[in-house]
Amino acid sequence: MPRTSLAQAATTLARRLNQLARVSDERGATTRTFLSPAMQRANALVGRWMKGAGLSVREDSVANLIGRMPASRRAAQTLLLGSHLDTVRDAGRFDGALGVLLPISALEVIRSRGLSLAFAVEVLGFSEEEGVRFSSAYLGSKGYTGRLKKSDLRLRDLYGTTVGEALAKRKGRAFSPGAVLRRNSLLGYLEVHIEQGPVLEARRLAAGVVSSIAGQTRAKLVFGGRAGHAGTTPMALRRDALAGAAAFVLEVEAFAGRRPPLVATVGRIAAHPGASNVIAGSAEVSLDVRHPVDGKRRAALRALTATGRRIAKRRGLSFSIEVIDDNDTVGCSKDLTSLLSQSVRAREGQTFTLASGAGHDGVIVSSIAPIAMLFVRCRKGLSHHPDEFVAAGDLRAALEIVVDFLLRLSSRFER
Amino acid sequence: MPRTSLAQAATTLARRLNQLARVSDERGATTRTFLSPAMQRANALVGRWMKGAGLSVREDSVANLIGRMPASRRAAQTLLLGSHLDTVRDAGRFDGALGVLLPISALEVIRSRGLSLAFAVEVLGFSEEEGVRFSSAYLGSKGYTGRLKKSDLRLRDLYGTTVGEALAKRKGRAFSPGAVLRRNSLLGYLEVHIEQGPVLEARRLAAGVVSSIAGQTRAKLVFGGRAGHAGTTPMALRRDALAGAAAFVLEVEAFAGRRPPLVATVGRIAAHPGASNVIAGSAEVSLDVRHPVDGKRRAALRALTATGRRIAKRRGLSFSIEVIDDNDTVGCSKDLTSLLSQSVRAREGQTFTLASGAGHDGVIVSSIAPIAMLFVRCRKGLSHHPDEFVAAGDLRAALEIVVDFLLRLSSRFER
Repeated sequence: MPRTSLAQAATTLARRLNQLARVSDERGATTRTFLSPAMQRANALVGRWMKGAGLSVREDSVANLIGRMPASRRAAQTLLLGSHLDTVRDAGRFDGALGVLLPISALEVIRSRGLSLAFAVEVLGFSEEEGVRFSSAYLGSKGYTGRLKKSDLRLRDLYGTTVGEALAKRKGRAFSPGAVLRRNSLLGYLEVHIEQGPVLEARRLAAGVVSSIAGQTRAKLVFGGRAGHAGTTPMALRRDALAGAAAFVLEVEAFAGRRPPLVATVGRIAAHPGASNVIAGSAEVSLDVRHPVDGKRRAALRALTATGRRIAKRRGLSFSIEVIDDNDTVGCSKDLTSLLSQSVRAREGQTFTLASGAGHDGVIVSSIAPIAMLFVRCRKGLSHHPDEFVAAGDLRAALEIVVDFLLRLSSRFER
Repeated sequence: MPRTSLAQAATTLARRLNQLARVSDERGATTRTFLSPAMQRANALVGRWMKGAGLSVREDSVANLIGRMPASRRAAQTLLLGSHLDTVRDAGRFDGALGVLLPISALEVIRSRGLSLAFAVEVLGFSEEEGVRFSSAYLGSKGYTGRLKKSDLRLRDLYGTTVGEALAKRKGRAFSPGAVLRRNSLLGYLEVHIEQGPVLEARRLAAGVVSSIAGQTRAKLVFGGRAGHAGTTPMALRRDALAGAAAFVLEVEAFAGRRPPLVATVGRIAAHPGASNVIAGSAEVSLDVRHPVDGKRRAALRALTATGRRIAKRRGLSFSIEVIDDNDTVGCSKDLTSLLSQSVRAREGQTFTLASGAGHDGVIVSSIAPIAMLFVRCRKGLSHHPDEFVAAGDLRAALEIVVDFLLRLSSRFER
């Protein structure tokens, strides 16, 4: 086997990221949602690359893509490396995909050098992390770790299909969530991800080590009013659900604006029946609240719930809130993070640690294994956008760091 | 032929309204939009009732349903009677349908009495009035009167299909709007419609005569911001398009609230990409503005456009507005309205005239014929809602009025 240089492997990685970005459910944009046709094609494509790297490939019951490389020793532990293959709508090329494809390239580099690892490796391409289709995130990693609940299976997409129905359709038989995964054999989980923020760029660093992942709450709020004719209902007699929702959107923005580093976002809104000549009878909004301190996040959610209720009362509307996801801040493993910092220092001459404002699959995987995360610099901190960009040099730096990390970890098991 | 009593005909009419309400594109709700499968079924069903009443039935190039009864004399003029068969989402049973089915029942009553009319009659079931699918109203009556523009054909629905493509698909060949319809042979147009407001109920009247149809402007506004990650973008650095749209929704409500009888409504809203964890990069809202005085409606539109622009500027957003429909107030024909008032007085002992706050097909048909409208009382003024209701006694009253109107008009032509 010819020796693959890091430069060659980084070029291949960049080409694969481009190629994967063209696998989409939408023409002219990158969009892959849970169990969609494009996700099936993405799993097939990435699965071929995994096989080419010498991994044995399978899909689990929730369509996670899993490529396994056995250890050089018997009864060895397993290191997990991965991220997600689904995307937001009109996404960039790196969010998620980088953390699946970079480990494959790292293993190819190691193999081409004639080296092997003392532990088994599983490269994971999670089938759902972004929460686009069912407004609930981490369905892939929850399925992988056996943490899908019956209530998760009842979540509905825009067309009324439930998670359970979509999974049953895929398999041709009813789906039931398995038992919670317990694997004593796990060494840990490493996730490589773009920073999605401006810090590394400001510090002129190609990569950084994540200390913790900020807690996050996602909720769905519904304001209920009275539908009516837009031409014949005087303004004074209206109970306009959309106007209530609009007031809430502005209050969320103002509340978080006064309390950095709190962030709170309404990204989805729908008015029903949703016709230009009908006063909205109900309006639904999403709410996403994050803060590095769990107590502050919870207090913000309580305050915003009270705000929604107050707006509704003043306008004669009904109000309901349903918390869909609620994840506390997750700390990364001190041991793995320390090792990863050594690899960053070896490549970059220094190391830098930062917190993640975004949620990642590691949040869920932390329930079964110690986790570490490597952040890679992205231009202007831009993410969830087609202009998301990582420089070729930074791809290569991250690849070199992960190769170094794998070899360092393996060396622990040498006599 | 057995003589059909008014009571029997009114019972049949009520049964048909119920039956037609079950023809829907949505399970458990009445929804029929332009060229949808339910609209095809509705045309087939109503066409059978038309044939049963002795009308010859056809569909025109934009799927309007037309039932024609020839005059008892040669070279006679034609009276148009009709309304629309499409509906809003989750609609009631009467809006539109009443104005198509009631004339059929009236002609059945007249025929069963062995009478005939001195003029020809066309009963029209317009294929589109509500503007649900393409956010533009009156596509049916515009097609019928030859007023569809090329720009109308380029309007897109939610799935990207244009009006022109949908019409071409129906016919199997490219659609082009015909010439403006010029018919010197038209006596006029009568539309029966529920009031969709509370005035007749407050005055304890079964029916009223419409003096004019208030002008209406419909527009689409787009706020453009910058999409970004909800977890990693500090509040201070955001350009949130949805927050701008929300501010606009509240300003519209407040502006119209201070200026009765102005009404202004945002009934549709969409944030893009529309994921709970992505700051909206753009947000689109509908705007519907109505006022009985054309100058005041135009002034309101100018003021709200300036408001939108100001909000966008303050927030660093882009802003655009596109006027989709703009119809001035339309006066009803003095002659036909006077005759209709006589029929109302004959049945009810008094007559009452009121303006229409809602737009109706008569707005468009007024370009080719003098128009008259009969409003029928509906409970609590509720419309565009499944609880829309007209009492059986009021259906019968309206039917009797229309039968009387037709016979009075016919008597004008007798020697």
